[in-house]
Amino acid sequence: MSEQDLGITESKSHATGDWYAEVVQKAELADYAPMGGFIVTRPRGYAIWEGIQDHLDAEFKATGVQNTYFPMFIPESFLEREKDIVEGFDPEVAWTTHGGHEELDERLAVRPTSESIIAPFMADWIRSHRDLPMRLNQWCSVVRWEATETKPFFRTKEFLWQEGHTAHRDEQSAREETMTRLDQYERLYEDVLAMPALTGRKPDHDKFPGAEMTTTVETLMPDGKSVQAATSHYLGTSFAEAFDITYADEDEDDCVAHTTSWGLSWRAIGALVMLHSDEQGLVLPPTLAPEQVVIVPIWDADSKEHVLEYADEIAADLDSAGLRVGLDDRDNRNPGFKYNEWELKGVPLRIEVGPNEVEEESATLVHRPDGEQISVERAGISDTVDDHLDEVYAKLYAAAEQTLDGAIREADSREEILGTIGQHGGYVEAGWCGDEACEAPIKDAVAAEIVMVPFEDDPIHEECAICGEPAARTAYFARTY
Amino acid sequence: MSEQDLGITESKSHATGDWYAEVVQKAELADYAPMGGFIVTRPRGYAIWEGIQDHLDAEFKATGVQNTYFPMFIPESFLEREKDIVEGFDPEVAWTTHGGHEELDERLAVRPTSESIIAPFMADWIRSHRDLPMRLNQWCSVVRWEATETKPFFRTKEFLWQEGHTAHRDEQSAREETMTRLDQYERLYEDVLAMPALTGRKPDHDKFPGAEMTTTVETLMPDGKSVQAATSHYLGTSFAEAFDITYADEDEDDCVAHTTSWGLSWRAIGALVMLHSDEQGLVLPPTLAPEQVVIVPIWDADSKEHVLEYADEIAADLDSAGLRVGLDDRDNRNPGFKYNEWELKGVPLRIEVGPNEVEEESATLVHRPDGEQISVERAGISDTVDDHLDEVYAKLYAAAEQTLDGAIREADSREEILGTIGQHGGYVEAGWCGDEACEAPIKDAVAAEIVMVPFEDDPIHEECAICGEPAARTAYFARTY
Repeated sequence: MSEQDLGITESKSHATGDWYAEVVQKAELADYAPMGGFIVTRPRGYAIWEGIQDHLDAEFKATGVQNTYFPMFIPESFLEREKDIVEGFDPEVAWTTHGGHEELDERLAVRPTSESIIAPFMADWIRSHRDLPMRLNQWCSVVRWEATETKPFFRTKEFLWQEGHTAHRDEQSAREETMTRLDQYERLYEDVLAMPALTGRKPDHDKFPGAEMTTTVETLMPDGKSVQAATSHYLGTSFAEAFDITYADEDEDDCVAHTTSWGLSWRAIGALVMLHSDEQGLVLPPTLAPEQVVIVPIWDADSKEHVLEYADEIAADLDSAGLRVGLDDRDNRNPGFKYNEWELKGVPLRIEVGPNEVEEESATLVHRPDGEQISVERAGISDTVDDHLDEVYAKLYAAAEQTLDGAIREADSREEILGTIGQHGGYVEAGWCGDEACEAPIKDAVAAEIVMVPFEDDPIHEECAICGEPAARTAYFARTY
Repeated sequence: MSEQDLGITESKSHATGDWYAEVVQKAELADYAPMGGFIVTRPRGYAIWEGIQDHLDAEFKATGVQNTYFPMFIPESFLEREKDIVEGFDPEVAWTTHGGHEELDERLAVRPTSESIIAPFMADWIRSHRDLPMRLNQWCSVVRWEATETKPFFRTKEFLWQEGHTAHRDEQSAREETMTRLDQYERLYEDVLAMPALTGRKPDHDKFPGAEMTTTVETLMPDGKSVQAATSHYLGTSFAEAFDITYADEDEDDCVAHTTSWGLSWRAIGALVMLHSDEQGLVLPPTLAPEQVVIVPIWDADSKEHVLEYADEIAADLDSAGLRVGLDDRDNRNPGFKYNEWELKGVPLRIEVGPNEVEEESATLVHRPDGEQISVERAGISDTVDDHLDEVYAKLYAAAEQTLDGAIREADSREEILGTIGQHGGYVEAGWCGDEACEAPIKDAVAAEIVMVPFEDDPIHEECAICGEPAARTAYFARTY
């Protein structure tokens, strides 16, 4: 890394998209692949994904989910079966047509999602009520050939995700499953990504095709747009009927299963980076940072030996305590360069030690998000650092929460919705009759849509803000990613 | 699972291929996908892969490897660049030609291996000697459109693997890397899969295209054939030259890097299953078994409550000790059925508890590989079970080692090589001049080839067994998978 690689030149507030792309590349999370729409995920980016996987995978397994691997290809005739469920389903899929020098008899879709290959196997594996619930998940990549501008982690033709597919004996069990997964996604955002989130249902006209209910985790980006950060669907019996997922109950009667599906993609990385980072570069919560702490020793010729020894011992202490720690003892870089580089790369806590610290048996801690400096004692440094990492997490969360709280505004009329979105972005909470037609004028005028309907059934407004008819729900309008 | 699903009907010794396929399906490791050449990996199969991943990934990370994710597609022009290295390189790849309704300008290969997409990025990321060594790995699936019969985990058009790609400043560093990875693969087989292995080099005529040296881990299957169980290549500077992977040394001189690559696929699962399993079904080492122990309580109406309570407590003890334990308290199956089912599924240790065990405060342990039964005290059961799991591992390893030791035979002439392979299979150790022409008659007559040349430079035979010229090496001939 050279001097000119260090600075972020774009402005987060004035050119959010360009700033985001610059942070992703300069912090070495990802590069653009030669084919438009694809990215290469570098070690510092992939480590974040591994952190997310580790957390979610443990939660899934603790609640009965088993991992599997289904083929990356789906025969065209299998995808066609979904047409029984979804009128005019016409996915933007990539087609593989040749194997070696031969043209294939039937072309193969590179999976855009795996319902149509998983469901027939579930139908085969499930015989009795004792086989239920069946909860399968896979971590894999999927491909959707959408012709939009590439935005690393947000919009890429190939992306990494997990897709869960479950079958249950009745509606109650399947609905509980849907909410269990939604709750786990929300916990991931709140407890690991330091991102407060809103949860609710999608309006009926924006459900997953074939679903009875689509639930969503929505997170707010700094430019006032909402990101659909994870979804969990109750599919009713529609997929089970189309793919014959049935079971024999206690009386040996044949019953149709109820199914769910739920997924989270590496878009979570995109939302994380965009929310917390700043004009010095990447900001990461200590939960996910590849290095939680970096020690930067400051020496001159006389003090070098003592300072490095002192820094080494601190690094060893932190390492023994299970912290992810780096020691930057490079000879060819000055401390200022190192500060800038580790700030760019999102290290949550920096420890500076020089001759003074050696003398006083202390260390200087610097918090990444706000530059707060604290002198602490050398003794008990692991526990102290642990506390400060918690504090850094709390700072990130509190700042995001404050932004979110301030970005939810009420509106009572069409004009008020349009004016508020146009001026502030964020979420506008309004009464809604439940008709898609009342979303249309908002979409047309300011490109905002109903991103979420709270789970509580009682609308807090009496009238639909658009048509004036009685409100059936409360709707959250926002622009989206 | 019903009665007829339980038994393995094929004979391991007389119909190894059919027996293997039956074990894989009935033990619920994998099913055949609707497209020829593909399989669906079920939870019990995928859990074995996760066990292998967990072990290797930790070893890799402890030795400086970083995980990445590169696109699944490689533009045809990128693959073509490898032609600079490999004369007539013509991979059997699957081609993606359409995205949505549009034909692509350039067709995309579904990655058969990723050198040609990773190397250009390494070239970009490496500037100075300080960036070296660079060690990248990815866990992913690859596709090779080979028209052979599907054999789950052994031969499938899509398979899961890891591929490591590293760059170094000089030959010594790159050769050390090659051997570090080979050693880690060997340790995986020896310490986790209970499989003794042979390691050595491939003969020059069987190296990876473009490699200076290909090293291999070879394992022996019960039918006397050898499996190439992992490979690690020292690639010299050929890939670095073709893809411009260069760096500035301390004097700012431009130097060409030396690279390596190394990989292990889910073929490891196939070799594991084929080696240890038997005519009762799957046999797994405790290191990888999804359940290490299953408790089968045996009760009648009077004793049911006490037996189940006793079994519950043992299960809780083992679980607290970090063991993977199952308790089979199903009402609708008798103990005999349960024994058969858990034997089929490869559980290494069964614990039987009935009224006698409750009375005596004991438990009956049964080892999976040989049915040995041992009555042990209830007190201290977690430590006792731990010891018995070690013993089961040792039994599996010892049996495999005995088979391997007995399957390495020497030969001094072409006739002796042919006779020994024809009669016994296994490995035949012979002097070899180093010329590929001397392998040909063995290949033609008994379909055996030189699978491995030991690392020791001194041949143990003076003459080539085939042509009678001075021996340059010792060769291991075997039939292969």
